[in-house]
Amino acid sequence: MQIDELDTPAVVVDLDILEKNLNKLADYCNQYNLRLRPHTKTHKIPEIARMQIRSGAWGITVAKVGEAEVMAAAGLDNILIAYPILGQSKLDRVMKLARSHKITVSLDSSEALAGISRAAARAGCSLDVLVECDLGMHRCGLQTPDEVLNLAEQVTRLPGVRFAGILFYPGHVWALPADQPAAMTKVSAQLAEFLKRLAGQSLHCEVVSGGSTPTAYNSHLLAGLTEIRSGTYVFNDRNTLDIGACRLENCALKLLVTVISNAVPGKAMIDGGSKTFSGDRLLSGAKAGYGMVLEYPDIQFESMSEEHGHLDLTSSSHRPKVGERLSILPNHVCACVNMHDTLWFHRKGVVEGSWTVAGRGQVR
Amino acid sequence: MQIDELDTPAVVVDLDILEKNLNKLADYCNQYNLRLRPHTKTHKIPEIARMQIRSGAWGITVAKVGEAEVMAAAGLDNILIAYPILGQSKLDRVMKLARSHKITVSLDSSEALAGISRAAARAGCSLDVLVECDLGMHRCGLQTPDEVLNLAEQVTRLPGVRFAGILFYPGHVWALPADQPAAMTKVSAQLAEFLKRLAGQSLHCEVVSGGSTPTAYNSHLLAGLTEIRSGTYVFNDRNTLDIGACRLENCALKLLVTVISNAVPGKAMIDGGSKTFSGDRLLSGAKAGYGMVLEYPDIQFESMSEEHGHLDLTSSSHRPKVGERLSILPNHVCACVNMHDTLWFHRKGVVEGSWTVAGRGQVR
Repeated sequence: MQIDELDTPAVVVDLDILEKNLNKLADYCNQYNLRLRPHTKTHKIPEIARMQIRSGAWGITVAKVGEAEVMAAAGLDNILIAYPILGQSKLDRVMKLARSHKITVSLDSSEALAGISRAAARAGCSLDVLVECDLGMHRCGLQTPDEVLNLAEQVTRLPGVRFAGILFYPGHVWALPADQPAAMTKVSAQLAEFLKRLAGQSLHCEVVSGGSTPTAYNSHLLAGLTEIRSGTYVFNDRNTLDIGACRLENCALKLLVTVISNAVPGKAMIDGGSKTFSGDRLLSGAKAGYGMVLEYPDIQFESMSEEHGHLDLTSSSHRPKVGERLSILPNHVCACVNMHDTLWFHRKGVVEGSWTVAGRGQVR
Repeated sequence: MQIDELDTPAVVVDLDILEKNLNKLADYCNQYNLRLRPHTKTHKIPEIARMQIRSGAWGITVAKVGEAEVMAAAGLDNILIAYPILGQSKLDRVMKLARSHKITVSLDSSEALAGISRAAARAGCSLDVLVECDLGMHRCGLQTPDEVLNLAEQVTRLPGVRFAGILFYPGHVWALPADQPAAMTKVSAQLAEFLKRLAGQSLHCEVVSGGSTPTAYNSHLLAGLTEIRSGTYVFNDRNTLDIGACRLENCALKLLVTVISNAVPGKAMIDGGSKTFSGDRLLSGAKAGYGMVLEYPDIQFESMSEEHGHLDLTSSSHRPKVGERLSILPNHVCACVNMHDTLWFHRKGVVEGSWTVAGRGQVR
C-alpha cells in the first residue's frame, strides 16, 4: 500500500529518515564520549525506543510513571523518570518497576526525596537519584550550588536511594545553531559551579544529564556533561526546522490530510485541527501558524478549530480542490503524536507497517 | 472514595452540576420549541450522550465518522455527522452505519455530495443532507443564497440523499451575553435571506441547525432555527465563564493536580501541561493563561510545557508546598477532555464511578 492510499488524517513516518536521525545523534555522542538517553515522550512507542537502543542509546527517559510502565512492559530497561514522583500511588508503581528494572528518578525537593526513600526502603529497592538544577530554564531545579549540595547530601544519608549525579534541562537555549555557542558557554559556566561545589564535598556525579534537541550537536560545549536526553531529534518538526536545528530532509514525520471545504473565498479547510496537530504555535520567528504545507509552502496554515485546519490561500496561486490531499509538517511533533493512536511507517512512500502510540494517555 | 484520594492529574466531573446544565438547556429548548442535538465532541462519552438524550435531546452531533461509530456501537441513534465526508474509506464506514442508524451529514460542495450520493445509492441507503451555509464564521459553508439553492437542488436530483435543510455554526459570535442580541440580529437577517431563497423554490427546510454554547440561550433570536448543537454547555469551562456565558457554579469539570516543584522563586510547577490541559489559550480578555487555579485565583497559570504547568505566584501571597493538591478549571474543556482516557464523576466530592472517553483518538 502507498501512503497516498491511507485514509486521512494520517501520521506517516519515513523510516529512512528516522534511521538517519537516530544514527547521526548516536555517532555524535560516540564522537564526544556522551551517553544518549533519548526522551521517549516524543513518540511514546516502544518499537522506536528499541530502535534507539539498537542504534546506541544506553537507556531511555520518560516523563510519567505510566510511560515508564509501558516501556518496561515492552522490554525496555535503564529508565530515567525525569520527573519528581509524589503521592503513594505513583511511589508504589515506581517500586513495582524498580524490583525488576533499573529506575532512576530526578527531583529537586526534600519532600520528593523523602517519599522515594521511604517507599524504596520499605520495598527493599535501591533507586538512583539525580538532583535537578536550574541552569536558566526556570521551570524545575534548584537555584544554587549550596541548595544542590544540601539535597545531594540528604540523598547520601537516606536509605533506598543512591546519589547518582545531577540533571538539568537547557530548554531555554532556543537559538539558531550559530548563536548557540555563546548561550552554551553561559550554561557551561553555571554547570561548572555546581559540579565544583559537589566535588568539594567529594560527591561524585556519575551522571550529569542535560541536552535537548535544539542544543544536541553543541552538547560537547558543556564541560562535565555525561549524557543527553534529546527527544524530538527522531522526527524533527517545524520548530526545529525553523530555528535551523535540522533541514527539511531530516524531518521524518508528516501528516496526510484532505481538503474538506473551499467554500469560503481565499480559504481551504483540511480535516485536522487542534485535535490532530495539537494547538502548539510555532515557537520562533513570527510565532504564527500551525504547520507547513509541504506541497505549497506559500499556503499559510493560519488557525485551527478542533477538527478543522484553516488554510489561508491569499499568498498562493494554488486553489486546492475539495478532496485534494496535502502533507503537513507539524509545529511540535511531540504534542502532535500524542493526539494519535497509530503512526504508519514507510520507505519511499510504500507503507511497511504501523506502530501503536502505546504510551499515549499516560498522564499519571 | 473521595476525589481528593484520586491520583493526579485527574479529571473529575460534578454530577449535580452536569445534570443541572443538561436540564437547563433542555428546558430552554422546550420553551422555544427548539430541538437539541448536542455536539458530543466535548465529552466523546456515550454515557453522557445517553444522559443528554434522556434529558430531552432528540439526537446527537459528532465531527468525525469514528465518533459516530463509537456512539452508534453504544446504542445512540439519530446522529448528525456535521462534517463533509470525503474518500472511499469514510464513505464505506458511513454507509455501514446508515444501514442500521439514522445518519445525517452536512456538506458544502458538489464533490462531497457526489461521493455521498454514489455511495448511498450503491449501498441502498438514504441519507439526510444538510447544506452548510456561512453566516459569518468563515470556516466552512456556502456564501450566498444562490449557492445554497444550487447545491440543495443538486441534492433533490441525486439518488441516495434527501434534502433535509441547512446548517451553520455561529462560532464567530463570541460576545458577552448582553452584547449578543445585536450580533444575533445580524445572523438572523442573513439566515432569513437563505431561507427565503430556498422557500422561493419550494425547498422546505425541515432542519435549520445552528447554535453554539456561548449563543445557546439567545438561540430564540434566530427566526426559523429548528435545532441547536451546543457542546461545551455540559461542563462549561474558563472560556465560557470568562465571556459570561456561565457562572462558576455551572462549571462541572475540573482537574486535580499536584505541585511537583517550587524550587524556582516565584513559581510552582504542577503535574500537568499541554498533554493534560491541551495548549488552548484563553479566547477572551487578555487571551493569556491556561486555566484558573480554583483555590487561589490570584495565582496565574502562565505557561506550559508538555508535562509541566507553570504557575506564577508573584500576584499571590500563597506559596504552594511540594505535594500540595490544587484544582484547575481548564480553558477549553473539549480539547482538555480529548487528552484523557478516563473521567471520574462524583457528588459532593464522593467518587461514584468513572467514564471512558471512548471517542478519544477518533481522528478519522
